[in-house]
Amino acid sequence: METYTSIPEDLKLAVLKKIKPTEAERKKLMAVQEELAAEVKAAAEKLCVPDIFVKMVGSAARGTWLSGTHDIDVFISFPEETSRKELETRGMEIAREVAKQAEYAEDRHAEHPYLNIIYRGFDVDLVPCFRVASACQLKSAVDRTPFHNEFVKTHIKGREEEVLLMKQFMRGGEVYGSELKTQGFSGYLTELLIIYHGSFEKTVKAASSWKPGQKIDIMQHSELEHNEPLVMVDPTDPRRNVAAALSLDKFCMFIDHCREFLKSPEIKFFFPACPLPLEDEEFLEKLESRKSSQLAVIFETPDVVDDVLYPQLYKMEQAAASLLSEYDFSVVKTGVWSGKTETVIMLELISGTLPNVKKRIGPPVWAREHAEKFKAKYEGAENVFGGYIEGGKYVFEIRRKYPTAKGLLEDQLLNSSLGKQVHQNVSKGFEVLEDTEICRLKDPDFRVFLRKWV
Amino acid sequence: METYTSIPEDLKLAVLKKIKPTEAERKKLMAVQEELAAEVKAAAEKLCVPDIFVKMVGSAARGTWLSGTHDIDVFISFPEETSRKELETRGMEIAREVAKQAEYAEDRHAEHPYLNIIYRGFDVDLVPCFRVASACQLKSAVDRTPFHNEFVKTHIKGREEEVLLMKQFMRGGEVYGSELKTQGFSGYLTELLIIYHGSFEKTVKAASSWKPGQKIDIMQHSELEHNEPLVMVDPTDPRRNVAAALSLDKFCMFIDHCREFLKSPEIKFFFPACPLPLEDEEFLEKLESRKSSQLAVIFETPDVVDDVLYPQLYKMEQAAASLLSEYDFSVVKTGVWSGKTETVIMLELISGTLPNVKKRIGPPVWAREHAEKFKAKYEGAENVFGGYIEGGKYVFEIRRKYPTAKGLLEDQLLNSSLGKQVHQNVSKGFEVLEDTEICRLKDPDFRVFLRKWV
Repeated sequence: METYTSIPEDLKLAVLKKIKPTEAERKKLMAVQEELAAEVKAAAEKLCVPDIFVKMVGSAARGTWLSGTHDIDVFISFPEETSRKELETRGMEIAREVAKQAEYAEDRHAEHPYLNIIYRGFDVDLVPCFRVASACQLKSAVDRTPFHNEFVKTHIKGREEEVLLMKQFMRGGEVYGSELKTQGFSGYLTELLIIYHGSFEKTVKAASSWKPGQKIDIMQHSELEHNEPLVMVDPTDPRRNVAAALSLDKFCMFIDHCREFLKSPEIKFFFPACPLPLEDEEFLEKLESRKSSQLAVIFETPDVVDDVLYPQLYKMEQAAASLLSEYDFSVVKTGVWSGKTETVIMLELISGTLPNVKKRIGPPVWAREHAEKFKAKYEGAENVFGGYIEGGKYVFEIRRKYPTAKGLLEDQLLNSSLGKQVHQNVSKGFEVLEDTEICRLKDPDFRVFLRKWV
Repeated sequence: METYTSIPEDLKLAVLKKIKPTEAERKKLMAVQEELAAEVKAAAEKLCVPDIFVKMVGSAARGTWLSGTHDIDVFISFPEETSRKELETRGMEIAREVAKQAEYAEDRHAEHPYLNIIYRGFDVDLVPCFRVASACQLKSAVDRTPFHNEFVKTHIKGREEEVLLMKQFMRGGEVYGSELKTQGFSGYLTELLIIYHGSFEKTVKAASSWKPGQKIDIMQHSELEHNEPLVMVDPTDPRRNVAAALSLDKFCMFIDHCREFLKSPEIKFFFPACPLPLEDEEFLEKLESRKSSQLAVIFETPDVVDDVLYPQLYKMEQAAASLLSEYDFSVVKTGVWSGKTETVIMLELISGTLPNVKKRIGPPVWAREHAEKFKAKYEGAENVFGGYIEGGKYVFEIRRKYPTAKGLLEDQLLNSSLGKQVHQNVSKGFEVLEDTEICRLKDPDFRVFLRKWV
């Protein structure tokens, strides 16, 4: 279609060859979807729940799924006038009935409950929802999905491959996925970008010049101001920003990924080399070469879903950094890694130790009341090295309470503002490993994280 | 005179006993002054310089000198119409003629030349000046002095002892002296404070509540705004602030000294205990207890008067602190000590070493041109550990150029902005001593400085 392109056709073909579902894969998916629809109908009949529609939504339903992903979203749609309680009870009854045919089933909760099952090898969500007249009138967040599905299906025709390329390209740049762990681009957002710009290449070129506040409003019907870095007004709901979950850093990482790709369009931008776990020896070398202080706070991974866990981990990361800064430690960077059993907050500091002496600057001498109170508190007190006047203010050299970052964390971390489940598990016990001690953590996935870290 | 006083009379008497010149001392000073006046007259006659007046100025002439100080200021006053050149030539001729009777003589320069001699054990300045009609019409800064002298003489009568008490009290608080080394209170300023407030005690009480911007205008004739912490409008010149040389810290130290004294009026505020030189062992203990880094930059003391030397040393102190901060070292405090042969800039740091890794934060990713330039400079470059996006900005972890403060100072101190004579001597060679190495400096006066330092 393009008259001018800087992205080689054979590169796109090479990528598509790896990510586009084969005809056999497509047929199998269609068959499973039909089966599931029939199962839901049968279950509803059996349980005497009338007026149920079954809707296949998500990328599987719109032909924009990446080969190898096996996600199916089945929406069980109730009449709008159904009560919330009835929707939940009856919806879950139907779902459980369907689950009798499944290899595995697990109750989950978003805004309301749904069932996740493994069915003939596919990862299927069975989601009860209301059948509302438009996305603006939704009774629950999931009610939007069928409208998204409709919009994409009617606008994406012929551009499914462009969506596939973009999704894989975003994966390569580590910005794909709108879960709270990633805070990147959702599938729907990706599809809207392709619908708006027309192709993968045009989107990449446009994104290279994005600035925070970039706004796309396909239907020209925006009703609200938004503060997020990217504003993609939902074509099915003028008040909603589809890109609300995209963080500033993921927004910028995507811009950077697009620019670098346009400079030299290579397959590595879709399939980056997978880093190897860092060996002890390499880690020790890096420590020696950087000469900064590395701290790892480890505790048992809370047993909650990622969307609950990661916001709490990010909060803890911030809390630890604030605590350290408050006590004069200079934080270089912070990071989070979470495995099945153990979770690690990584902290790199200019130094993990500080001198015993700490300068406490008081009020100006002429602010008499405050100044005299300050002076009375420190002058001649225990653990005070000395005092003087500097810049018109009383200054006392006092003994630092926490000369080591490790001691500070051990003593004060639990007093920081932590999320519920993280606080529970950290309370049970945590350990602060320093520098070479970090070699004790052997999890290969952590070691991959560590390679990027140092 | 006071009906109510919180300062015991016997304390004042005890102080005065130590500082008030005896009758014998006074008589001797008067005799020497008269002799000097006669010598100047005789010299002028001998050299055929007509129309010369001799004026005794300074504390000796106004009865406000502290016992044991032996300074006499003799002003050789020329008619106003004398040319500057003639004043200097003829004035110095007369001074040199007088100096023939002196034990020692040395040419000195302020705004114009004068002669400093030792005469019968007294330290005498022979200063040529113009005889102008009022202090506002002065042709040279020294021409003011005779007017100051007149003002004080006519207003201080009966309060000389109050001036003596205040001068000694300021000495005890290390705020007496308006030279550029001290930046404290001049004798004239002290006298004006007593004239304005009426007594030592009233001045102390008033000063306890001073705030920067405190203004005293005895003649109610101020013509200009001033920014200094204390403004004492010169009674002989409405445009001049007598306290212009008083630094904020000395202003505050005096306030503090007054408050503490009023809390418990004791003789130690006039005669503080003289600290002993710090022994090696004590210094090593202090190092161990503080655990900070101590650096001493030493070089040969420039052979210039204090009023030239100290501003340059303070400038160097600032320059060294700025240099260290610029390269990420955290400065706790800085200090200056200067002896006959060696001069020391003392620097206390949180740490004298920093890790090799240094975080360089670049422009936001969306500021495309700058951001791409920044990225191109660091990505994959030698001595770069890695890069990422943080807070929407490119960040690279680069190798620090100066991981030790000592190395930084040795390499860059000479490139800082230094005064002329200090730069000359530092260029000849300097050394940076670290922590225990500082024990090498044995000068007892430096060791007294060191006791206050740690």
